[in-house]
Amino acid sequence: MSENAFAFRLEANDGAARVGTFTTPHGDVPTPAFMPVGTLGTVKSLSMEEVGGLGARMILGNTYHLYLRPGHELVRQLGGLHDFMRWTGPILTDSGGYQVFSLAQIRDISDEGAVFTSHVDGSKHLFTPESVMDIQRTLGADVVMAFDECPPGGSDHAHAREANERTLKWLVRCRRRFEELNAQGAYPAQALFPVLQGNVYDDLRREHARQFQDVGDWAGFGIGGLSVGEAKPAMWRTLDVLDEELPFDRPRYLMGVGYPDDLLEAVSRGYDMFDCVAPTRNARHGTAWTSEEGQVNLKAARFREDTRPLDPNCDCTTCARYTRAYLRHLVASAEMLGFRLISIHNLRFLVRLGEQARRHIAQGTFHGWSGDWLERYRGARG
Amino acid sequence: MSENAFAFRLEANDGAARVGTFTTPHGDVPTPAFMPVGTLGTVKSLSMEEVGGLGARMILGNTYHLYLRPGHELVRQLGGLHDFMRWTGPILTDSGGYQVFSLAQIRDISDEGAVFTSHVDGSKHLFTPESVMDIQRTLGADVVMAFDECPPGGSDHAHAREANERTLKWLVRCRRRFEELNAQGAYPAQALFPVLQGNVYDDLRREHARQFQDVGDWAGFGIGGLSVGEAKPAMWRTLDVLDEELPFDRPRYLMGVGYPDDLLEAVSRGYDMFDCVAPTRNARHGTAWTSEEGQVNLKAARFREDTRPLDPNCDCTTCARYTRAYLRHLVASAEMLGFRLISIHNLRFLVRLGEQARRHIAQGTFHGWSGDWLERYRGARG
Repeated sequence: MSENAFAFRLEANDGAARVGTFTTPHGDVPTPAFMPVGTLGTVKSLSMEEVGGLGARMILGNTYHLYLRPGHELVRQLGGLHDFMRWTGPILTDSGGYQVFSLAQIRDISDEGAVFTSHVDGSKHLFTPESVMDIQRTLGADVVMAFDECPPGGSDHAHAREANERTLKWLVRCRRRFEELNAQGAYPAQALFPVLQGNVYDDLRREHARQFQDVGDWAGFGIGGLSVGEAKPAMWRTLDVLDEELPFDRPRYLMGVGYPDDLLEAVSRGYDMFDCVAPTRNARHGTAWTSEEGQVNLKAARFREDTRPLDPNCDCTTCARYTRAYLRHLVASAEMLGFRLISIHNLRFLVRLGEQARRHIAQGTFHGWSGDWLERYRGARG
Repeated sequence: MSENAFAFRLEANDGAARVGTFTTPHGDVPTPAFMPVGTLGTVKSLSMEEVGGLGARMILGNTYHLYLRPGHELVRQLGGLHDFMRWTGPILTDSGGYQVFSLAQIRDISDEGAVFTSHVDGSKHLFTPESVMDIQRTLGADVVMAFDECPPGGSDHAHAREANERTLKWLVRCRRRFEELNAQGAYPAQALFPVLQGNVYDDLRREHARQFQDVGDWAGFGIGGLSVGEAKPAMWRTLDVLDEELPFDRPRYLMGVGYPDDLLEAVSRGYDMFDCVAPTRNARHGTAWTSEEGQVNLKAARFREDTRPLDPNCDCTTCARYTRAYLRHLVASAEMLGFRLISIHNLRFLVRLGEQARRHIAQGTFHGWSGDWLERYRGARG
């Protein structure tokens, strides 16, 4: 099996919004698609049957976390990430770049790579473009991400340019190492996505997109450096800029997005794949998304006697079975089942939003539908 | 529906060990039976489908906890405890006595009742025999327990006698209130079990058992004040003593037991129903029971690369699907899924032990089987 095991077929569009199918060795991913995050080889609190039952087709693993615990070599020994966590569908692993720059403590960053201390035990580690390719091959994901420098949101132009330049140099090394591994017949077949940076600076974004395409052809593109604190209009403008620069026939993965409204905004601008920890992180705080009432927090006293489902329009198992009053009780009592039931709902909410977007794009009704949806959702939040 | 909705049919015995069926308005409970504990209206981390899938037929709720959160009146308003938590089988609620004397801070105890401060918010409350009957009727369990004073393990004879006397007085008041509620046509139909105390003092145990039967006939008996720190031989002796005193044709519920070996020891002495938080509490610490290796802790380094199921002889969904190495990783990373998967296994382990005991009692092979089982289990633990 080679990189040819991957393909992206565009099937319909409505303006910039697109319907496609991303083919991987572990199955097809209809896009637009939200991908649940399985940081440590588990989508927090859920079984893989539940994740599959949500309609999720592809999930994420975090290279940084799995490298530290349980260790990528052990994951390989235990059959690779799919077998280890009992997920038979496609998996994407990130490069660890974002975590190294946000979660770990950076000790030293140079063109060679990034030296960081583990957030788990304070031990010292070096990630290089090459080692990150090796680790992700060892983990065995279907799609792997290039090692990038992700500067903090709000970085100035000079800092963003510097990060762009380093990310480009690292990309060339990632690709070289990735191809060496392919030439060695390394298992499994993988697709490498680069990660575009450039903050919200249009010139840097355009430049990066062009430079990346000069490096070679890519099976897909990761868009990094967004949803890191910038104003929403700046994010939408950046996505519009990149839409002009990126080849239309490659999947575009907008990293770390998102919230339901952000997902729809990005779909409307021509983006295909999404991930975010918000569904499970919000669930931990009792926060849920609803189609009619926007984002709600189940701790609120008004849900105390509310026997309605969390979202009467939702088809998830939580909404099919439990009342808001029960969920509120679980959240107020810090019961794990509350976290789990709301996680199921929030994840299904985003996965289903992707399904709904697909249908409306195919029917040519996407923009009217998403406009109405956003107006209702945002109006309710106010 | 009346108290006649309850019945206990003894179907077989092997020595003192018995097979029976306890009939309730929400279905039959084949005994011996382990009952999972759903303290706050949830068996921690599990859905009710999962609890049913374990083979559990009857579960517990905690009056003390539900009274404090979300409040018994709210539970009634939301359809009663069954509807609230979406459990269609029988439920037993304890009296809150054990929690008031162990978890809350007792402010004052008198013949009237017990004044305590909530462990949740420090608020002050009074439980009386009457209020505890009212609360449990309001919650709507099938079986309710009489309010008892449970003295600490290791209490001296005088203290234990005093607690026995108070518990007896309270029992009379519980029964009176229970019958008043019945006469008022209070919903739902319930069975009241008294709670025998007496620590490990044979004379107090015999006296209490006789006094209780003088008060009236009972649908079943709760045995309290055991598994509170006493030596195991003292517990077995106490159970032998009570076996002589209790009517053989009533279900005997040994409260707070137990661990697998304790459950088998009690079954062999003629006890029918059991509950304990150990399956889920142990799971939180990564501790699991196995048929061949006794009690194991999955944090141990030896499980790091172990691709076997947790217990190759177990039929639970955790053992059907996941490796010890994966469970160890989840536990080591404090992932909720680890807690959940081990809880499923531990609960199924006890429920299945009840099923196996039933089969062996019916076949007249119980004592040989349980002797071998205990020898293997305890040998492995050493």
